[in-house]
Amino acid sequence: MSSTAPNLIAAVSEARQWDRLMELAKLGAITGADGEPGVNRACLTPLDREARRLVISWAEGLGLTVSVDEIGNLFLRHEGTEAGAAPVLTGSHMDTQPNGGRFDGIWGVIAGLEAVQAIREAGIATRRPIEVVAWTNEEGGRFAPGCMGSMAYAHYKPANAWDAVADAEGITFGQALAEHRAAEAGLTHRPLGGKPFAYVEAHIEQGPRLEAEGADIGVVTGIQGSRWFIVELRGETAHAGTAPVSLRKDAVQDMIRAITALNALMTDPTDVLRFTVGQIEVLPNTSNTVADRVRFTIDFRHPDKDVLLANGDAIEPTIRSAVKNCEVTVTERFHALPVEFDALVTDAVEDAATAQGLSSLRIPSGAFHDAQFMVPLCPSGMIFVPCRNGVSHNPAEYSTPGQLAAGARVLAAVLTDLANR
Amino acid sequence: MSSTAPNLIAAVSEARQWDRLMELAKLGAITGADGEPGVNRACLTPLDREARRLVISWAEGLGLTVSVDEIGNLFLRHEGTEAGAAPVLTGSHMDTQPNGGRFDGIWGVIAGLEAVQAIREAGIATRRPIEVVAWTNEEGGRFAPGCMGSMAYAHYKPANAWDAVADAEGITFGQALAEHRAAEAGLTHRPLGGKPFAYVEAHIEQGPRLEAEGADIGVVTGIQGSRWFIVELRGETAHAGTAPVSLRKDAVQDMIRAITALNALMTDPTDVLRFTVGQIEVLPNTSNTVADRVRFTIDFRHPDKDVLLANGDAIEPTIRSAVKNCEVTVTERFHALPVEFDALVTDAVEDAATAQGLSSLRIPSGAFHDAQFMVPLCPSGMIFVPCRNGVSHNPAEYSTPGQLAAGARVLAAVLTDLANR
Repeated sequence: MSSTAPNLIAAVSEARQWDRLMELAKLGAITGADGEPGVNRACLTPLDREARRLVISWAEGLGLTVSVDEIGNLFLRHEGTEAGAAPVLTGSHMDTQPNGGRFDGIWGVIAGLEAVQAIREAGIATRRPIEVVAWTNEEGGRFAPGCMGSMAYAHYKPANAWDAVADAEGITFGQALAEHRAAEAGLTHRPLGGKPFAYVEAHIEQGPRLEAEGADIGVVTGIQGSRWFIVELRGETAHAGTAPVSLRKDAVQDMIRAITALNALMTDPTDVLRFTVGQIEVLPNTSNTVADRVRFTIDFRHPDKDVLLANGDAIEPTIRSAVKNCEVTVTERFHALPVEFDALVTDAVEDAATAQGLSSLRIPSGAFHDAQFMVPLCPSGMIFVPCRNGVSHNPAEYSTPGQLAAGARVLAAVLTDLANR
Repeated sequence: MSSTAPNLIAAVSEARQWDRLMELAKLGAITGADGEPGVNRACLTPLDREARRLVISWAEGLGLTVSVDEIGNLFLRHEGTEAGAAPVLTGSHMDTQPNGGRFDGIWGVIAGLEAVQAIREAGIATRRPIEVVAWTNEEGGRFAPGCMGSMAYAHYKPANAWDAVADAEGITFGQALAEHRAAEAGLTHRPLGGKPFAYVEAHIEQGPRLEAEGADIGVVTGIQGSRWFIVELRGETAHAGTAPVSLRKDAVQDMIRAITALNALMTDPTDVLRFTVGQIEVLPNTSNTVADRVRFTIDFRHPDKDVLLANGDAIEPTIRSAVKNCEVTVTERFHALPVEFDALVTDAVEDAATAQGLSSLRIPSGAFHDAQFMVPLCPSGMIFVPCRNGVSHNPAEYSTPGQLAAGARVLAAVLTDLANR
């Protein structure tokens, strides 16, 4: 445990961090149902690149070294005093959900930049380098699944594993990445992967606990596991007025049967389990034709590995038992086991909060994050700050400038601490 | 009852009618799941206009008078011998479902043209004029509901009633119609509406009965009633990993509840009732966000007016009782009571079939047709021919050249009969 230098804390600027976030929120600005200022900035789009150029300009202004790897992960490097020492890595992502907020992901990048700027302005030298990373496609909103950048960095999958994944317009990840890399060809290239000394990611909680319990800082203990599936049902079109219901191969009705059976499978009185059908496509999708094709997604999460495996493995047989008339294809496209974060990081976060007089709470993360793919590489962890009503993936997502500044101060202290070990 | 002149029957050309249908099937040609040649030709599109130009060129070649009305209905007129006599009207529509076949609708127009051509080539004069009509937007595939052209003609609704209805790209019916009318500005304009002496529409059955019972001709006794609804559910987006299931306002799950309750309402052991959810839109439609918006359609049909009214009126309360967390809007956008066709036409069809040595069967229509909106205007009826396996609204839709020629011969006889009364 280390106490934090007062000049470091003072060097973190609440206003500068907030202004940067607001400037970035203009890129892809949308308005929510009740007029809230949200953001729709999908990965590997011109808007994404514009946001990256802004962040790069701030980093270069600070004297950081900028580089990108083959999947588009962006690194901003502050040098340490010891040549060859493994870096401390921090950061998050810059892409948003289609109807997203101003803080999810981007704050982790800007907090990393703010922390490094404070360290430099406070004149603090660290033994290890500190790298701020912006991971490619964490959200999975445009190209599913999410966390492609961190998965590739961690060699969880090869960088070309998702080349054929198409967005809603039929553009593949491979095409979008090639275009993106061409647009960023002027940046220094670095090899994919690395062996950091530690990884710490700052993020809004995206849940209600810190706010409800009045805690300033969440010391994240781990991340629940996630399994994502695509279900495709293939029946037969028919005329809605003439085809007898008993003879139809109606893909919509088989979807109803499948989801009803899955709801029964996924019933959890403790309300820990997360089961979501968020995306549905119907073909031919006209009101007076029985649909012959339905495609829907499943997002299933649980902190207990045994439940994750048992219920996840039961999804396909449950659907097959429920469906009456259609051919069924179930494809698992994301499978991440629950992870526990390392005491090196969790203790450093808790100690920094305490040293700064902030209240903290140890909590697990319901959302997945790039941090979970760092766990096999190095001691990893996360810092959460409260967000209003626990709302995220929505323009109503909000944390106060003060809450975000507190998070950046803890991050600055943790980075200094870890970079001197 | 009139016997049919042999030279009229001989003048109906199986090959000419088939060739015209195949030529039209090139305009919007698609390939079905098993390689079948289908058609996707939405109303008021350039493809629709190209098909109309082809039909107009054939009509002008025959010496028919071409005109259009303000909703785009197209009329091809054969003059009668008595000035001012009310015309016999025949025809159908030229638009298709997005994944449609080569015969639904278009055959009724081409059969009308074939019948008139045969009448003229046989040198038969009729007292009354005969008009072949192609109604605008019967399918409702691009702009819902269907039958706009015939509804406007019959003054069931004003011609501008649907101006604000938008297609999937956001183009309104009003915009598309204005563009269409500008493109057809060179055609003669006629006032909307009319008072025909009788209406008879030729159409493929779109059901399996004629084929199953070995009948050549369906004498259509009437059309079941239809009610179309749009249901909109409005909940709240949330993060699929963090938001507790118990606290969600998940529009997809409320849709599952609504459709499950509707399925119970619409259960019919006699399999006469038709209930279809064919179109579903989800927002924001990403796999890891709880959906806040769902919009789905209901197509409900029944031949019994009492059931149509009782079950149709129960739809909204059933949905409201079933839905747990979302705001609900239910909009009825189409309401057509069951109709019975007039003995003047049904007897004429049956007699013509008998006179030609064809077997006929009296059957109701499961599909709605423009003919049902003619019922209040004049004695109306329809001629069905068998289609393979009862399949329609699908590229696999098929009737043989011989089946279609038999239908055109009956139509020619019926038109001659009615036009001389």
